[in-house]
Amino acid sequence: MPTLGELATYLELELRGDPDTPIQGLAALDIAKQEHLSFVSEKKHLHRLASTQAGTVILHPDWLEIWSGNALLSAAPYITYAHVTRIFDNHPRPSGHVHDAAIVADNAQLGDKVTIDAGACIEPDVVLGDRVWIGAGAYVGHGASIGEDTVIKQGAVICHAVKIGQRCTIHPNTTIGADGFGFAPSDGGWVKIEQLATVLIGDDVEIGANSTVDRGALEDTVVGDGAIIDNLVQIAHGARVGRQTAIASQAGVSGSTQIGDRCVIAGQAGLVGHIVIADDVHIGGQGRVASSVTEAGHYGSGTPIQPMRAWLRSASRFTQLDQIAKRIVELEKATGLDQQKDDKV
Amino acid sequence: MPTLGELATYLELELRGDPDTPIQGLAALDIAKQEHLSFVSEKKHLHRLASTQAGTVILHPDWLEIWSGNALLSAAPYITYAHVTRIFDNHPRPSGHVHDAAIVADNAQLGDKVTIDAGACIEPDVVLGDRVWIGAGAYVGHGASIGEDTVIKQGAVICHAVKIGQRCTIHPNTTIGADGFGFAPSDGGWVKIEQLATVLIGDDVEIGANSTVDRGALEDTVVGDGAIIDNLVQIAHGARVGRQTAIASQAGVSGSTQIGDRCVIAGQAGLVGHIVIADDVHIGGQGRVASSVTEAGHYGSGTPIQPMRAWLRSASRFTQLDQIAKRIVELEKATGLDQQKDDKV
Amino acid sequence: MPTLGELATYLELELRGDPDTPIQGLAALDIAKQEHLSFVSEKKHLHRLASTQAGTVILHPDWLEIWSGNALLSAAPYITYAHVTRIFDNHPRPSGHVHDAAIVADNAQLGDKVTIDAGACIEPDVVLGDRVWIGAGAYVGHGASIGEDTVIKQGAVICHAVKIGQRCTIHPNTTIGADGFGFAPSDGGWVKIEQLATVLIGDDVEIGANSTVDRGALEDTVVGDGAIIDNLVQIAHGARVGRQTAIASQAGVSGSTQIGDRCVIAGQAGLVGHIVIADDVHIGGQGRVASSVTEAGHYGSGTPIQPMRAWLRSASRFTQLDQIAKRIVELEKATGLDQQKDDKV
Repeated sequence: MPTLGELATYLELELRGDPDTPIQGLAALDIAKQEHLSFVSEKKHLHRLASTQAGTVILHPDWLEIWSGNALLSAAPYITYAHVTRIFDNHPRPSGHVHDAAIVADNAQLGDKVTIDAGACIEPDVVLGDRVWIGAGAYVGHGASIGEDTVIKQGAVICHAVKIGQRCTIHPNTTIGADGFGFAPSDGGWVKIEQLATVLIGDDVEIGANSTVDRGALEDTVVGDGAIIDNLVQIAHGARVGRQTAIASQAGVSGSTQIGDRCVIAGQAGLVGHIVIADDVHIGGQGRVASSVTEAGHYGSGTPIQPMRAWLRSASRFTQLDQIAKRIVELEKATGLDQQKDDKV
Repeated sequence: MPTLGELATYLELELRGDPDTPIQGLAALDIAKQEHLSFVSEKKHLHRLASTQAGTVILHPDWLEIWSGNALLSAAPYITYAHVTRIFDNHPRPSGHVHDAAIVADNAQLGDKVTIDAGACIEPDVVLGDRVWIGAGAYVGHGASIGEDTVIKQGAVICHAVKIGQRCTIHPNTTIGADGFGFAPSDGGWVKIEQLATVLIGDDVEIGANSTVDRGALEDTVVGDGAIIDNLVQIAHGARVGRQTAIASQAGVSGSTQIGDRCVIAGQAGLVGHIVIADDVHIGGQGRVASSVTEAGHYGSGTPIQPMRAWLRSASRFTQLDQIAKRIVELEKATGLDQQKDDKV
Repeated sequence: MPTLGELATYLELELRGDPDTPIQGLAALDIAKQEHLSFVSEKKHLHRLASTQAGTVILHPDWLEIWSGNALLSAAPYITYAHVTRIFDNHPRPSGHVHDAAIVADNAQLGDKVTIDAGACIEPDVVLGDRVWIGAGAYVGHGASIGEDTVIKQGAVICHAVKIGQRCTIHPNTTIGADGFGFAPSDGGWVKIEQLATVLIGDDVEIGANSTVDRGALEDTVVGDGAIIDNLVQIAHGARVGRQTAIASQAGVSGSTQIGDRCVIAGQAGLVGHIVIADDVHIGGQGRVASSVTEAGHYGSGTPIQPMRAWLRSASRFTQLDQIAKRIVELEKATGLDQQKDDKV
């Protein structure tokens, strides 16, 4: 159990209070007790300090006067909180060796201290960097390469020739490099287009559980450095996800679409294929992106929930919208309002 | 093959007809034959009795006069039908022992008659209750506990420290307890927030295939007793799903959102984070829930499909709605209708 | 490396240029070099021929005069491109035998040249046709049957009694035949309806990664010959997908819904249960299909993205639509426009 002083030293932050105070763990303000460290990251939460029982709080130096307990002073409390989670991290650690029940091709190249857990399968010509961790039952296909310190979790499938950078995490049951959805229509049905390219994933990328990133047909699917992708996300063949872009759960990116850097795509948003999204674009939840977005900023689409009967009326009227607009034009003609508008112009 | 009489005894129901009638299986009214048992659960389907070839039908006693064949009389025919499916259930049964090709940590605690199939991996400190069944290739992480009679199907991944109650079913390739999607934005990119809490799943919970329930950052993600969750559903970190709540396929629940008891969330609905949904709320398909819902009832959002050209016009007009509303105000001023309204008030 | 002449012979096409030209690979027009084969499939892309560095291009004979390089002449260039991808396909090939670390039930019937990779599990009474390939860690349940030349990729789970036809591909981590989401509501909670039927998948079907096709309750879930299904798609119990129908990523088909032949369901579209979709229906991305579609054609729903503030106004006005429409009626009365309309009729 670290002390407040040790945390301050580790984080290179100033503290207020007894440095020997033991910190048992992290907790949110409303459930933290005397032995916990908590945090306030935004002004709007400062009022919660009055009722918290936390013994120690991470907060901005400007807010120190409204808090009388122990404190870790940070110009960026939320980032400090993120750093502290590593200290209290309780995830299992890699064993540093290859389990007897793992299946590893003779010619696979394994770096130092690689961990391969039970039931994992490493195909020929795979290259695993130092300290790579392949979880139980995960699969790494022919010729795939995984950079240093990357973790492939249980049941994840990394298909042949996929390249993943350093310090990435691929969560359980995710599939990287399955065939893109490419077929040519013919009178006799769909003709499969073999997907000849692969997937390139940069450094420091995290991809959630049960997501899919398809391999490209002729051009690689690319996920840039520092991108973060949530669960159940679809990245189609030939798409490009920019650096530090975040894509939330159940969002989908169609084929060949290019997303810029530092974008945020909220949950269940869908991007049609062959479009370009500029840097720093934020798309709201369930956003329906049917054409390129050339300007940074926040965008939304969809309609709010209403009580069912009211919504049924709204939805029905939606289908009449073009008629409604035309009737307004008629009314403006009938009342002369159209003339007045012309006059103003 | 049971007889009608045996079914009636098992179900504690009255019958009409020869108790020795063999019942070969269950079938829907329109395809059932003489040897089958069928059912009518709603008045609106009663007319289908006229044309069915079913030999025996489960129905309400009030409906008996319009059906001349064999009958099982039930005040709740649909629930009776559900009970009967167990009798004809043809799912494979657990072997009751640990397969030679399973990997089980020495210190894992296994209850009586636990089944662990080939390729499954049970990590140290796991506790499996009596009659637990871990399917082929499934994974149970360090310190996880699984209650009596629970089934973890093939390829499912239960991460470290997750707690699952009794009589639950987790379907194939589902992931419980992967890291929540938590990152702090910084100038240098996203800083990972280690997810220190876990997932608590109650008793009698069913979770479909390829779904994800993430572990919490500081507070556990909770799924209440009797909840049912379909395939490809996302439950984000720190969310709470109430007792007996049903969540249909491809719906998503964002972080820290709390859903009450007995709610029904239809397919592809999306709930934003940090909101509260009252008990007995029903959200329609693709519902877009962006704020708390405090009253029980049915809610919907979205727009109906239209033929493509008509829809394109509706969608275009949607973006003009604010102008349309303002033009109506102008028209009401021009025609004096606004005055009349004021007079009425 | 094939020559142009060899390709022309294989494809039964005419060529222009030196038949001995070696073709190193396929590439899109904008990145192809002298050693590559590229293609133009639509007139609108013909202008790109002016700047391409491709040595050889697949194109329609009518377009030959605007291209001076080597050419493969095809009446259907895109289909020819699809055929050529097979020649350059670089996917790993099946070994043709059963890996030592596969678990295969004694009474499973294996055709000629079946491949079963490491960690795969084949349960009793399974039938695998000639040249079937079961990938690493995949699972085939009791009594399931897989037709000739079908590939079940890594981590896919095929549940008991599922029947899959010939020449199909099931991509990684997909689940076929998990229980449909069937429960009867009762005062004591949800009563499970055992799913007694199975899944029937025709010939030449491709199903993407991390998708789910549930088994039926009383009637089988059916996917017709030549259907193509993308990643993260949900096909619920008792649904029927017609022949050569395409379903894109993250779309969902609810229980008992029947989709005709040659339909196209775009990404994230959702179909409610118990409806019928005619042949040759195309549903746009995120389409919300709440009732049967009886006429072939293209359909859409949803709203376009807008900058966030503008969208918030549109969305707010959407909830007022019924009032807006009624106010227009009032205005039409006040201006006499309603009379004029009646007069016209």
